[in-house]
Amino acid sequence: MAILSKRAKYAVNALHEENVIAERLERNGKKIIRLNQGDPPLYFPTPRYTVDAYVRALRHGKTGYSEFGGIRELREAIARRHSTRGVPLGPEDVIVTAGVSGALQFLNEALVDMGDSAILFRPYYAVYTPWLRMAGGTPIFENYDEADNWNIEIGHVERSIRNLKREGKLGRVKYMLITNPNNPTGTVLRRSIIKEIVDIANENGILLVSDEIYDEIVYNNATFTSVGMLAKGMPHTILNGASKNYDATGFRIGYAAIPEKDKLSMAMKKAFSDFASVKISNSTPAQYAFADAISNEAEHRRELKGMVSGIEERVNFAMGLLEENRHLETVEPNGAFYLFPKIDTKALRIKNDSVFTRKLLEEEYVQVVRGSGFGSPNHFRMIALPPKEELELAINRINKFCRRHSR
Amino acid sequence: MAILSKRAKYAVNALHEENVIAERLERNGKKIIRLNQGDPPLYFPTPRYTVDAYVRALRHGKTGYSEFGGIRELREAIARRHSTRGVPLGPEDVIVTAGVSGALQFLNEALVDMGDSAILFRPYYAVYTPWLRMAGGTPIFENYDEADNWNIEIGHVERSIRNLKREGKLGRVKYMLITNPNNPTGTVLRRSIIKEIVDIANENGILLVSDEIYDEIVYNNATFTSVGMLAKGMPHTILNGASKNYDATGFRIGYAAIPEKDKLSMAMKKAFSDFASVKISNSTPAQYAFADAISNEAEHRRELKGMVSGIEERVNFAMGLLEENRHLETVEPNGAFYLFPKIDTKALRIKNDSVFTRKLLEEEYVQVVRGSGFGSPNHFRMIALPPKEELELAINRINKFCRRHSR
Repeated sequence: MAILSKRAKYAVNALHEENVIAERLERNGKKIIRLNQGDPPLYFPTPRYTVDAYVRALRHGKTGYSEFGGIRELREAIARRHSTRGVPLGPEDVIVTAGVSGALQFLNEALVDMGDSAILFRPYYAVYTPWLRMAGGTPIFENYDEADNWNIEIGHVERSIRNLKREGKLGRVKYMLITNPNNPTGTVLRRSIIKEIVDIANENGILLVSDEIYDEIVYNNATFTSVGMLAKGMPHTILNGASKNYDATGFRIGYAAIPEKDKLSMAMKKAFSDFASVKISNSTPAQYAFADAISNEAEHRRELKGMVSGIEERVNFAMGLLEENRHLETVEPNGAFYLFPKIDTKALRIKNDSVFTRKLLEEEYVQVVRGSGFGSPNHFRMIALPPKEELELAINRINKFCRRHSR
Repeated sequence: MAILSKRAKYAVNALHEENVIAERLERNGKKIIRLNQGDPPLYFPTPRYTVDAYVRALRHGKTGYSEFGGIRELREAIARRHSTRGVPLGPEDVIVTAGVSGALQFLNEALVDMGDSAILFRPYYAVYTPWLRMAGGTPIFENYDEADNWNIEIGHVERSIRNLKREGKLGRVKYMLITNPNNPTGTVLRRSIIKEIVDIANENGILLVSDEIYDEIVYNNATFTSVGMLAKGMPHTILNGASKNYDATGFRIGYAAIPEKDKLSMAMKKAFSDFASVKISNSTPAQYAFADAISNEAEHRRELKGMVSGIEERVNFAMGLLEENRHLETVEPNGAFYLFPKIDTKALRIKNDSVFTRKLLEEEYVQVVRGSGFGSPNHFRMIALPPKEELELAINRINKFCRRHSR
């Protein structure tokens, strides 16, 4: 008799798996440069007006439970946020969650039974697969196309879905999930690609889920298009939250927006709300703070502008330094704050990305995340959030590491 | 093909099921007295020193992600909290969760597969069964004994476990869960009863889980005994958090303490930590606030004393008014802040507790929770947190309702 459940083995988050090594090195006096977790408040303090709103909520006694699906003020602010950006929503279409991770939990718990599946694109955000597999589902992998700036090769997706249909497996596909802007690649998907994905989902009756948590962190002349702008009239869900655009990861407030009123969308709204009732509540003062952060649009735009231009500068600076390294090849990001270089493991005589990241940590004290943790081996993910001096130090060490191992 | 997963139907929390009716009545100008949710900060403001600590954390920039299993300061404070009360713990034995509800999620996800079971005692806290069933498990019900002040009839538990053993089903029993002080009955279990439960769990190799979220809200001369004091050397888990003793439900910070180092306990610590890594983080500033709330023991004792004596007064006041009602019979609570009267449905010519609570809401504008939502039909649960005037108004209406329906 196994001690743990079958699902326990799927509870893995690659972002943290080297923490134990990093902590051991730190105990031995080494200073680790941590480029593994995308945590903007560490580098760009959470806006003062948002913290002020949080403090006000606390001082006004907002410390009891909230409505389980989210306080009205926040659901209304979220609805306005999307409505003014071309995706009409009402507060009843929004369920507040414990971050996007909490929304992924509801998505999978509400829809996925043992034997079901979902279409994910590699590289995917590291916790998509654990939530899916813990619910009993199996991922069907498509790929973002590195040769096309990590956009999507639509023909391949069409062929795969035709095959699923022919094999009678399409009915078990519970959703297709895209990430835009992408984590870990930093790619903002082209509008034309999203349109094609929307059409494929619609034609095949597949729920389309779009994780848009970085939707305002867009630069290098890119333009963001929400799935919600193109998917009108078909079931779709948008995941978002306070963490990235509002620079407040530690608040743990995200949401799922389900804009439509078809049978599946209505069932999902009910189910997400039911799951929320079993979780009782999310942080109440943090919800008031997030509502204020959204509603105070002028302050938000000013703060966001500063953060995004800082990120753009750091990302491009890091790109420049990485280009000096002929053993890494990196597609230029135009959203989020990650770099996802491809490793020439052969030239480096390093077995794979896991060994690369472990050796990089042990030899150069730089912590990044193995690409296989996102479904794309022979890559690694690093954040470009730290100030230039720290990025320079880190990438110089990465470049030195590669030079040494290629000799 | 069903739209939703099989588990979705288990996501039910009886505490909120009449909210829709209550909101409709409110729109029609009725004032509802809500006695359905146990939310102390609504009646006893969260202590100022705790709110101050929360504000300090925010002002000091603690707004990024936390360590996924909880910040070190909090895990150390929790370990000290229990160690000084006879349950030696280290910070490595603690996993911080999103309330006790979050700990229940980890417990069930880590241990329970389809076909497994767990022993629960009726009446149970309303979300124990959803979390168990959503993981694929089936409850095996034992009973708290209303005739013995809601303690436990040990002989019955022993017989049940002997039967399970004989039928070869004991191996699928993943845990036995008790609640002390109890929700919904308000009973503090006798030490001798806990000792017997501990012995039964130990003899039969069953993990014992104790939800002790009300462990300092004890009055009417009762004494609380933690399972941790009696279960040394055997696998057990204690669930607790900031919500009740520290009067901070809206912080959403709970924890699981796993004191032992046996194989099961070590596997659980690892699994809970893995699940936490997939959830990324809990609220960071709230963790700092809770760490401070625990560590500032003198302030805590003073605040707690005020709250508990207020609760004692209100509970006993409510008991007195309920005793005037010969159609309700209520065991006197000595912990938490709930009353769980038994309804003489026959004399009231009311079909069951669901009809009772619905009619009470629609006719008298008092919202309570049906006992069947806790596994014990023909009862209802009400909170005794509001000030006396509000309790008096509510119970007068309940008594009037019963008089009217018994005529």
